[in-house]
Amino acid sequence: MNSSPAAMHSHLETLITALRCLPGVGPKSAQRMAYHLLQRDRAGAFYLAQALERAATDVRHCSECNNFSEHEVCALCASAKRDANLLCVVEMPADLLMMEQTQCYRGKYFVLMGRLSPLDGVGAKELNLERLVRRVQEHPCEVILATNFTVEGDATAHYLATLLQSQNVKVSRIARGLPVGGELDQVDSGTLAQAVLERREVIA
Amino acid sequence: MNSSPAAMHSHLETLITALRCLPGVGPKSAQRMAYHLLQRDRAGAFYLAQALERAATDVRHCSECNNFSEHEVCALCASAKRDANLLCVVEMPADLLMMEQTQCYRGKYFVLMGRLSPLDGVGAKELNLERLVRRVQEHPCEVILATNFTVEGDATAHYLATLLQSQNVKVSRIARGLPVGGELDQVDSGTLAQAVLERREVIA
Repeated sequence: MNSSPAAMHSHLETLITALRCLPGVGPKSAQRMAYHLLQRDRAGAFYLAQALERAATDVRHCSECNNFSEHEVCALCASAKRDANLLCVVEMPADLLMMEQTQCYRGKYFVLMGRLSPLDGVGAKELNLERLVRRVQEHPCEVILATNFTVEGDATAHYLATLLQSQNVKVSRIARGLPVGGELDQVDSGTLAQAVLERREVIA
Repeated sequence: MNSSPAAMHSHLETLITALRCLPGVGPKSAQRMAYHLLQRDRAGAFYLAQALERAATDVRHCSECNNFSEHEVCALCASAKRDANLLCVVEMPADLLMMEQTQCYRGKYFVLMGRLSPLDGVGAKELNLERLVRRVQEHPCEVILATNFTVEGDATAHYLATLLQSQNVKVSRIARGLPVGGELDQVDSGTLAQAVLERREVIA
């Protein structure tokens, strides 16, 4: 953003620059956001400042599942109601939330906080996979790989399967196929091909 | 965003809610922003918190031009180099920046911080137009209306012209027409019609 020194003022300029640390926010959006907050929602600005400070200070990673948590062990890992014999591996906290919304999974989780992506410099070390291996060694369980069905998610699942099977862990991957309510002429051909390859015998 | 109490944690939840006070940020983006800051850019989160707090505390309106300023009178209004006989009225601070980038205008400004928009409850009172009238009475000058060429911007310009001319102020409006480098078959017919209506005599 070009700006004449006479027309812009340092705190406002600093705010516009600072807003650009948010993903997907460019110079124009940052400017719009700053003007909006200063013009119409100063209370919102203070509230956001406080929320940022608190979260950045207090939120850390659960020592068991690696998800964001304010405590050493998160509520889900501490719960006695969850089945410790099942461990679902997901990429991000949002994926865990989606799994929870299905209300069909009652096991525990491990959140990778990313995926293997050598081009972005994310290897096995960056994903903290030793922690996952230690978790499985300490509490033997079945591991369900629920990484995304993207190239990187698949590669991560493949790497994890090899790694965990070498520890004699039973590993499965969530199913690929048509969505519930899906129609054959609506689905892409890659998904349909996978659904044929991974067909299941019908037991009458 | 649905969330199970076991899977989400209050500071993180609060941050996601707080981020939604930014214009154009929905639940999904807010979640993505919060995860990004906590996972990859805690320093950015602290920096943004501080910038928000400082701007929301210190930025107010210049008592002369009504633009955002940290001081009673902004640097542009305080400058002796600006021509006090010209006053350009714009809707928003971003419009002032665009005017400054042209580097052809050396007068002063008045920033409306909005436009007349009765449906949104913005009338003459909300725009602080008494301040503009007082400004013009105290420092008689030519007023250039540079509100947008939208329905609301035009209505605002019309209202201001009537108001200011009743105070015996010379009022002009920036020109409408084809853009520089514009081609007739590329421009919309409304603009072309206006360019014909507002044609200027060619002086050889």
